[in-house]
Amino acid sequence: MTSLHSVETPAALIDVQRMQRNIERMQTRMDHLGVRFRPHVKTAKCPDVTRAQVAAGARGITVSTLKEAEQFFAAGITDILYAVGIAPDKLPRALALCQRGCDLTLIVDNIDAAHALNDFGKAHGATFEVWIEIDSDGHRAGIKPEDDALPEIAHALQKGGMTLGGVMTHAGSSYDHSTPDALRQIAEQERAAAVRAAQRLREAGLPCPAVSVGSTPTALSAEHLEGVTEVRAGVYVFFDLVMHNVGVCTLDDIALSVLTTVIGHQQEKGWAIVDAGWMAMSRDRGTQKQTHDFGFGQVCTDSGTVLEGYVLSGANQEHGIVSCRVDVDHDIRQRFPIGTRLRILPNHACATGAQHPEYKVLLSDDSIETRPRFYGW
Amino acid sequence: MTSLHSVETPAALIDVQRMQRNIERMQTRMDHLGVRFRPHVKTAKCPDVTRAQVAAGARGITVSTLKEAEQFFAAGITDILYAVGIAPDKLPRALALCQRGCDLTLIVDNIDAAHALNDFGKAHGATFEVWIEIDSDGHRAGIKPEDDALPEIAHALQKGGMTLGGVMTHAGSSYDHSTPDALRQIAEQERAAAVRAAQRLREAGLPCPAVSVGSTPTALSAEHLEGVTEVRAGVYVFFDLVMHNVGVCTLDDIALSVLTTVIGHQQEKGWAIVDAGWMAMSRDRGTQKQTHDFGFGQVCTDSGTVLEGYVLSGANQEHGIVSCRVDVDHDIRQRFPIGTRLRILPNHACATGAQHPEYKVLLSDDSIETRPRFYGW
Repeated sequence: MTSLHSVETPAALIDVQRMQRNIERMQTRMDHLGVRFRPHVKTAKCPDVTRAQVAAGARGITVSTLKEAEQFFAAGITDILYAVGIAPDKLPRALALCQRGCDLTLIVDNIDAAHALNDFGKAHGATFEVWIEIDSDGHRAGIKPEDDALPEIAHALQKGGMTLGGVMTHAGSSYDHSTPDALRQIAEQERAAAVRAAQRLREAGLPCPAVSVGSTPTALSAEHLEGVTEVRAGVYVFFDLVMHNVGVCTLDDIALSVLTTVIGHQQEKGWAIVDAGWMAMSRDRGTQKQTHDFGFGQVCTDSGTVLEGYVLSGANQEHGIVSCRVDVDHDIRQRFPIGTRLRILPNHACATGAQHPEYKVLLSDDSIETRPRFYGW
Repeated sequence: MTSLHSVETPAALIDVQRMQRNIERMQTRMDHLGVRFRPHVKTAKCPDVTRAQVAAGARGITVSTLKEAEQFFAAGITDILYAVGIAPDKLPRALALCQRGCDLTLIVDNIDAAHALNDFGKAHGATFEVWIEIDSDGHRAGIKPEDDALPEIAHALQKGGMTLGGVMTHAGSSYDHSTPDALRQIAEQERAAAVRAAQRLREAGLPCPAVSVGSTPTALSAEHLEGVTEVRAGVYVFFDLVMHNVGVCTLDDIALSVLTTVIGHQQEKGWAIVDAGWMAMSRDRGTQKQTHDFGFGQVCTDSGTVLEGYVLSGANQEHGIVSCRVDVDHDIRQRFPIGTRLRILPNHACATGAQHPEYKVLLSDDSIETRPRFYGW
């Protein structure tokens, strides 16, 4: 039996009990709110993680790249929403996936992309299911629910032979909030925008079966989801320090960490040098502007107990600096001798996971299994 | 012939003419200064790039992980310096590499690691070549040249049967400077610290054949390298926006970029949305605190012409926001229509390259070749 002790560092470690708890928490909530749940698999990029989500009740998945769509289709999942506005150049690859039996849904948020889709469809005798991306908070892409271009895009797609499947939105600005009130408010804003867009399409005589919303903070904060048919969320499966600062998880919910080894000290500075730098943690400094700045991560013992006040305060490519946030710890060499193994909780699970070719999965009997994850486009 | 036009986005693009120019510039300088050059291959993690460095005159390589050592050894390079303090748990893997014929050099900067090395050597009948890491600027690891522990570590290693091969240092704080004077000064500080450490060892009757220094800024700024035997540098092979701000390259020297496609707009905000987010660029915001903040990258045309003032001002996982730094560009939709392809110069080439499974290499005849790169540990 492989144990934690034999795992080479740095390594991305999944605490499967925590992950399972996170999956059940979200699915229970979605069941209670009466909506389908379509997890975003960009966080883990690991079919085994998604199997656990599906086993708990998830229906279909959300992806951020066509590579994810291809990999998860190969793993047996057919209902896939590609939640990034389709670039015309990617259509041949999307079509190939559909022709192999994948139920792939594309999104657009502008008339030019709709025309490109129609032109491609005409040229190749292809029909795609298309949803329209709605802008519910101004943070990124999407068209506003009241924009005149909304029915125009929908009519164009319908006329071009595409299947109008619905609307979707993502209130990514929910990450900027940290009180239950503000989170409830942005969740309601996200819901209302999607429902209003659907209403406008239906008023124009257009079909809009799917009304899809979601982000981890809004999914966990919505009071009701009237008019919504499905929710999407990704990072909840692992959670992270950013989500902790947002207020939707405790430190003990964080299921992903980076296992590292102490390789040196600068005692007069109170530093322990570890073998997890930004290559293992990612360069994500998502907590920098939040109420609690965790540096590059929160330090825990190798068994996962949080070491209050100790953070990864600096990171080079393959070196990390562990130090105490409040005081210079002159006993750092005695506290963390050479060879000491620590777990570091990440700022952003999606970014940290992406740095690793595989996960070491810590099971409930303390054994370790290795699960590959993929990357690239 | 594959051309740039057929490359799917996002993609990591190497302009091979620029790369070749960067390689020749560094090697010429090293030849002029009379030192060996041992490139750090952590930047590209691509044997083809290193072959070009070796062809230009590089001798041996520097690595930041044992995986790099294994991959480059498999690619035919035998003289390898593993430039991160060795963790005791990694010694079996290092030994396996030596037993296969690799001339692998390890480094230590403390007595505990030296003892662990000796104990392992005794237990396995193994002798490693070991260099001692010197702290020349307080930025990270290493032992100060005047520290009493320096000869102590060296004596312990020698007594333990290890081969004392030299000293090495890396003035990583050179990245924090941006004037020729300051760079010359930190280069001299780096040189002097390594030479002084070597002197102390020799005075104690210990061998110190190798005196190794280096970082891209100091390598390009040192006035002389008396007493130094070799220089290491990595990022110079591609350069990046951080190096541009430091003052050691022009924008036209930057050989790595990310090719991306426009997928949408928010015209009233002056945004074009592209399919290169932080997954393609990395989360590195290295220019944030420098004199010129390039956001997540400098925007260029698809043929590489810098579009002055246009930067990747925001990035989500697979979405980037292109905007003008000074004004809201209300013509953004006309300027960069859907499907427009752009190149984005990265803040930090080591971090951006690491996000990609392969490079698209643009040759002098405008054809494209694909070269794999690896990741992980």
